[in-house]
Amino acid sequence: MGQLSVDDIQLILDTADSFKDISLREIKKVPTLRGKSVVNFFYEASTRTRTSFEVAAKRLSADTFSLTASASSMVKGETLLDTGRNLQAMSPDVIVIRHSSSGAPHLLAKGVKACVVNAGDGINEHPTQALLDLYTIRERKGRIRGLNVAIIGDIAHSRVARSNMIGLTKMGANVTIGGPPTMIPVGMEAFGVEVVPDPRKAIREKDVVMMLRIQLERQRKTLFPSLREYSAAFGLDTEALKSAKPDCVIMHPGPINRGVEISSELADGPASLILDQVANGVAVRMAILYLLIGGSKADAVDKERTAG
Amino acid sequence: MGQLSVDDIQLILDTADSFKDISLREIKKVPTLRGKSVVNFFYEASTRTRTSFEVAAKRLSADTFSLTASASSMVKGETLLDTGRNLQAMSPDVIVIRHSSSGAPHLLAKGVKACVVNAGDGINEHPTQALLDLYTIRERKGRIRGLNVAIIGDIAHSRVARSNMIGLTKMGANVTIGGPPTMIPVGMEAFGVEVVPDPRKAIREKDVVMMLRIQLERQRKTLFPSLREYSAAFGLDTEALKSAKPDCVIMHPGPINRGVEISSELADGPASLILDQVANGVAVRMAILYLLIGGSKADAVDKERTAG
Amino acid sequence: MGQLSVDDIQLILDTADSFKDISLREIKKVPTLRGKSVVNFFYEASTRTRTSFEVAAKRLSADTFSLTASASSMVKGETLLDTGRNLQAMSPDVIVIRHSSSGAPHLLAKGVKACVVNAGDGINEHPTQALLDLYTIRERKGRIRGLNVAIIGDIAHSRVARSNMIGLTKMGANVTIGGPPTMIPVGMEAFGVEVVPDPRKAIREKDVVMMLRIQLERQRKTLFPSLREYSAAFGLDTEALKSAKPDCVIMHPGPINRGVEISSELADGPASLILDQVANGVAVRMAILYLLIGGSKADAVDKERTAG
Repeated sequence: MGQLSVDDIQLILDTADSFKDISLREIKKVPTLRGKSVVNFFYEASTRTRTSFEVAAKRLSADTFSLTASASSMVKGETLLDTGRNLQAMSPDVIVIRHSSSGAPHLLAKGVKACVVNAGDGINEHPTQALLDLYTIRERKGRIRGLNVAIIGDIAHSRVARSNMIGLTKMGANVTIGGPPTMIPVGMEAFGVEVVPDPRKAIREKDVVMMLRIQLERQRKTLFPSLREYSAAFGLDTEALKSAKPDCVIMHPGPINRGVEISSELADGPASLILDQVANGVAVRMAILYLLIGGSKADAVDKERTAG
Repeated sequence: MGQLSVDDIQLILDTADSFKDISLREIKKVPTLRGKSVVNFFYEASTRTRTSFEVAAKRLSADTFSLTASASSMVKGETLLDTGRNLQAMSPDVIVIRHSSSGAPHLLAKGVKACVVNAGDGINEHPTQALLDLYTIRERKGRIRGLNVAIIGDIAHSRVARSNMIGLTKMGANVTIGGPPTMIPVGMEAFGVEVVPDPRKAIREKDVVMMLRIQLERQRKTLFPSLREYSAAFGLDTEALKSAKPDCVIMHPGPINRGVEISSELADGPASLILDQVANGVAVRMAILYLLIGGSKADAVDKERTAG
Repeated sequence: MGQLSVDDIQLILDTADSFKDISLREIKKVPTLRGKSVVNFFYEASTRTRTSFEVAAKRLSADTFSLTASASSMVKGETLLDTGRNLQAMSPDVIVIRHSSSGAPHLLAKGVKACVVNAGDGINEHPTQALLDLYTIRERKGRIRGLNVAIIGDIAHSRVARSNMIGLTKMGANVTIGGPPTMIPVGMEAFGVEVVPDPRKAIREKDVVMMLRIQLERQRKTLFPSLREYSAAFGLDTEALKSAKPDCVIMHPGPINRGVEISSELADGPASLILDQVANGVAVRMAILYLLIGGSKADAVDKERTAG
C-alpha cells in the first residue's frame, strides 16, 4: 500500500467494480487472461487468500500453479531468489507470494521479470487485504474520505493493520487504533493515525470498526494473560458497539475467533461485513491480475509499483 | 443414501450411463460445466475419491479448487461452518467434502448456498461410493432388484457398508452382512439386512460379495488378534468363494489389503469388479455434478436431498 | 535414456525446438492436448520438475492432476502397482512419476495402459533432465557430437549423472566424470566415460562442465568431512574454470548450493546455462507429452520405449 498512489487505488477499486458481477453469473468465467500463468507461492498456510487468488485467476481463464514451501526446493536449502529465478525461467506472468519474512516480495520482485503480488509478508504488509477492505467500505458507505475508522487488536503483529492504516489515511479516512498497550508499538502516530488504546474509547462515534484476529500462531511470547481476559477487555460485542455510530459496520480479516475478539452475535449480525470482504476479495484480486497483465488498461498502472 | 429416493438413484445411474463413454474418447472433455466452480474440501487423506471428483469435474470443464485441512484455516481454529461460509462467499457451485466427523456435510449444507456432496463423513455415509457400487452391479448383472449381496468385514467402522446397506435394500437387493462379531453392531437388522457373522455362511449362494477394507487407521482399539487370524477367518479367496453362485462377482471399495481381506488371485481374477468400480466412480460423479448444477435436467432432482 | 535411440533423442530435441517459443508468447497456450489427462505422481518433494511438467501440460491445454505420496493411499499401505491400476481406471493419458525407488516407473509402466514418464527414480535415471541438458548444450554449442563434457560431483548418488552419461555418450560427446573418490562407484568406465577424480584435471579443455548438487538429503552416511572441505576440493569457481576451454559453459540441475559445489560468481555469470536449463525443461517436456499422446507425429516414437 505504501507504493500505491491514490489514483492507483482508485483504479483498482473501479476495476474491481466491473469484475464483481462475474462471480454471480451462471457461467463464472471470462477469457480475459487465457494463456497467462499465475503462480501462487505460499510459504505460510492460508485458505482464504490462496483460494481467493486461485478463484480470481481461474475466473479470468488464467492457468494457475500452486507451490508450497514444504513441497518445494526450500527444503533443499535453495534461496528465495534462486527459487524465484527458476520460476521465472518457466515464464509465469504473475507470482503471488506469501512469506513469513517482511520484504520477501520486494526481494523476489527485483529478481524476476514476472509481476509480483504481495499476499502477505511477515508483519509488514497485506496489501490485497487492505484493498478489499477499502472496496468493501466504499461499497457500503459510498465513500472512504472523511470516515472515522477504528482498528482494534494486536496492531504490532498485524500486517493487515499496517496496510489498512496506510491505505485508509491515503484515501482520506480518519484512523484510530486501539488494543492492549503491549500490542501497540510506539510511534504509530507517524502513520497519521490516532492512538487510543482503550477500545471502548477508540470505537466511539466510528463509522467502521475493524477487529483484528488474535494471531496466536504469530506471537513468540504471551502478550496478555488469557483469552478470556483479552475478550473481556478488548473483544467487541453488541453492548460495546453502542458507543459507535448507529450505522457503524464491523469488519474482520478472518479467520475469526468467535467469542474472543468478536462476539458471534456481532459477527453474524447485520452490521457485519465479514463475508462481503471475502466475496469482494475475489473481485479485487481479479482487478489486480487484470491490471497487471490484462492488456491495454494495464498501461495505466506502473507495474513495478503495483507489485509491492 | 438415506435421503435419496429410488427414482433419484435411478436417475443418477441412468445419467452416469450417458457420461461413461466420455472417459474412453480421444478427447475426454465436454463443455457442460464450463464456468462452474467445484471445491474439493478433504479433511482426510484420499487418493481415489478426491482424484475421482477432480477428474469428473474437469472432464465436464468445471474449474476445481482443492483445500486440505492441514493447509487451511482449520489450523487457525476456525469452525467448519465459518470455513464453509467463507468458501460460499467466493461463489462455488459445489463443495465436495470429506470429513472425519459424521454429519459434517449436513452441517455444512445448512450454512452454504452451494450444493454440498458428501465424499465420506466419519462412520456415517459414503454415498458416492454406494452409487458407483450400484452402477457397477447393474452394469454387470443387468439389474439390482432380487440380487443376493453379502457385505463382509468391519461393518461397525465402515461408512461404505452403511451407504451400501441403505442403497442396496432401497433398490430391492437382499443384503447379508458378515464379519467378526466385535465388528458388527447390534441392531443392524433395522437396516433390513440379514446378519450372518460367519463369512463362509454369509456368502453362500450370493450374486455379489463386497469385501470391506480393514481400516486400521480408523480403529481405536484392536478388534481382532492379528491380521493373519483375520485373514484366515474372514478373508476371501478362491476356495472360500466356491459356496457363492458360480457367476458371483467380487467388489471392494479399495485400497485393498492383498492377502488380508482378499487374496491376490481373487482381486486380480475375472470375478473382480474392483477396477470397474473405480472407472465407474468417475462416471457416477460426473452424473452427480451434472444433475446438481448442469442445467435443465437438474430440475428433476431436489438439490437439497441429493446433497446428503 | 537407456531405452532411447539416437533417433528418438533427435526427434524429442527437434520437437522441443518447435515448442520453445510458445512460452515466450503473449498467450502461452496451444490447444494441442485439449481433453487429455496428465497425472503428476510425485513420491518425493520437487519444485522444478513437478512444476515444469505441470506448466508443460497446461501450455498444451491438457488437464493435470497432482498426487503426492503423503496425501495418497500410500499411507494406507497400497502397493505402487495397485495405486497405478486405480489411476489407470480413471483413464489418464500420461502418468508422470517420481519415486525414491529405482525402477518404480518401469514397474508402473507394466501395470497401466497410460504412457509413463520417469521424472526421477531413486539413483537410477532422470531422463527428462538429461534430455533438457542435451537440448541446452545443442542450443548453445550447435551440436553435441565431439564435445568434451565433464560431470563433477557425487556421481554415485546422482540419477542426473547417470542419465547424462548415457545420453551424452549416445549422442557422441566425450564424457569425463570427477568427484570425491568415495562418490565415484567402481566400473563407471562401462558407461563409456573417462574417470578423472580430481576435478581440477577433469575439467581441463572441456566445452561443458556439469556440476552436480551435493544431495545431502540422499546420503545415508557422510562421504566427505565438511561442506567447506568439499567446496575447497571439488567446488567450481572462476579461477578453477580457467583450465577449461575459454568458451566453456557451466550447467547444474539445480537447486544449487551457492558456495558449495559452485561459486555465486560462476552461477550468475555469462558462462552459466543454469536458467536456460530450466526454461528448456518446459519445452522438452512439452515435446515428450506431445510425442507420447499428441497425435500423428507420435507414431514416430515407440511409446513403450519412450516411457522409460
